[in-house]
Amino acid sequence: MDQPIGVIDSGVGGLTVAKELMRQLPREEFIYLGDTLRCPYGSRPAEEVRIYTWEMVNFLMQYRIKMLVVACNTATAFVLDELKQNLNIPVVGVIQPGARAAIKTSQNLKIGVIGTTGTIQSKAYPDVLRDIHSEIDVYSLACPQLVPMVEKGMLSGGEAEKIVEESLSPFKDIQDMDTLILGCTHYPLIRPVIQKVMGEEVTIISSGEETARDVSAILSYNDLLYNGERKPSHKFFTTGNLAIFQHIANSWFGYQLPFVKSVRL
Amino acid sequence: MDQPIGVIDSGVGGLTVAKELMRQLPREEFIYLGDTLRCPYGSRPAEEVRIYTWEMVNFLMQYRIKMLVVACNTATAFVLDELKQNLNIPVVGVIQPGARAAIKTSQNLKIGVIGTTGTIQSKAYPDVLRDIHSEIDVYSLACPQLVPMVEKGMLSGGEAEKIVEESLSPFKDIQDMDTLILGCTHYPLIRPVIQKVMGEEVTIISSGEETARDVSAILSYNDLLYNGERKPSHKFFTTGNLAIFQHIANSWFGYQLPFVKSVRL
Repeated sequence: MDQPIGVIDSGVGGLTVAKELMRQLPREEFIYLGDTLRCPYGSRPAEEVRIYTWEMVNFLMQYRIKMLVVACNTATAFVLDELKQNLNIPVVGVIQPGARAAIKTSQNLKIGVIGTTGTIQSKAYPDVLRDIHSEIDVYSLACPQLVPMVEKGMLSGGEAEKIVEESLSPFKDIQDMDTLILGCTHYPLIRPVIQKVMGEEVTIISSGEETARDVSAILSYNDLLYNGERKPSHKFFTTGNLAIFQHIANSWFGYQLPFVKSVRL
Repeated sequence: MDQPIGVIDSGVGGLTVAKELMRQLPREEFIYLGDTLRCPYGSRPAEEVRIYTWEMVNFLMQYRIKMLVVACNTATAFVLDELKQNLNIPVVGVIQPGARAAIKTSQNLKIGVIGTTGTIQSKAYPDVLRDIHSEIDVYSLACPQLVPMVEKGMLSGGEAEKIVEESLSPFKDIQDMDTLILGCTHYPLIRPVIQKVMGEEVTIISSGEETARDVSAILSYNDLLYNGERKPSHKFFTTGNLAIFQHIANSWFGYQLPFVKSVRL
């Protein structure tokens, strides 16, 4: 199947998913759309997230995508089921892959989740984790300061560390939590800072890597893998400031992305 | 969906998959069938493997399984496509999950695969690996001595080490191979021995753990996860010697399995 795979996110966070998808599925072609203009989604009401998400999906459907990856935890929490019901292509979100990986990794089933206010309030992670395994202790924490920090390009340094330390301070009193899910695709961009604050004994699960594995599984389960000889050309779109998006994207990928455009939804 | 998940294998090797499935999906019920009587499959002609596999599948279909896991690499290599085409339930084999995990793990894309003669001659691993990623160096090695060793219950000790060392000796001259796929579900039972012989710098990928992740993904993708309150009761069947099967199974699980029966196909 030579059609591309669509990836949507509220901003630059989904780039962590896109990079991992491109690494694990190097023959596939991806079209990425980040709704940077209206980011963050995490503090918006569910209905607003629903409308914005459909606007992104409709934009990508023009490109005849063969699969949709919802690389935004908030959109996954609020809209995934509706998308699955209404689209006739496979739709994969980031919450279940992250939850599954945490269950695979954790030794004592004491699992922390950090995310936006919307994701945490939706209880999507505890629900999915307990759907799979009924005896899990889930510690959820909303970290509304982190996405704006990342979208500004503040990915390391003393000030970033201070904000992360403050945000994660409620976890200080929890004993033995051995696994932490980054329940927001922006967070892998500041993973080293988070790891430093949490300590080396906590295993950090990044939705990005895990989602790419699931996308690969579901692509091949549905016989949708591309197996021709084309050299893939990926497209990146942002609804917001092109220069800031390019700056973050190029530094995350480590090279100049050839196709980055701004778009109005 | 309260129906069980079926797991078939040529013998006891698939127990490594079953254990991991039960750990990662503790609410699901599993029915395992090991064709110990006719094990190993790895040195049999494809047509024979095909017939034996269908006999196992037909036995499990009586239990109204909602999904089939082919926990045998040889059967996956020879019969998976046919099973997928002819059954109206999802079918998952062990080769693609192992291949995907190796691609995710490997830094330099120099990947080794060990398996039975049948699996290695089928070229299923190189095919699947290169379907996903065209620039992989795959080093394949048939190790026909290992399955009989495991089925005898010889899982550690000097003699086991000697056999493994001999079997893996062709890998000695390959530089920089950073990942080794255990392309046979019997091998995780002797994983410590294999790790010792290969050295700590090689990451070993066990199909079992990886297949469980994929089963979980495809179950939830198809809305087949069980979410009631039943306590699962698993069933294990063997076509061969009940006592030997029970001995290996109980030692692998670390407790007495309550339901183990012998069966004639």
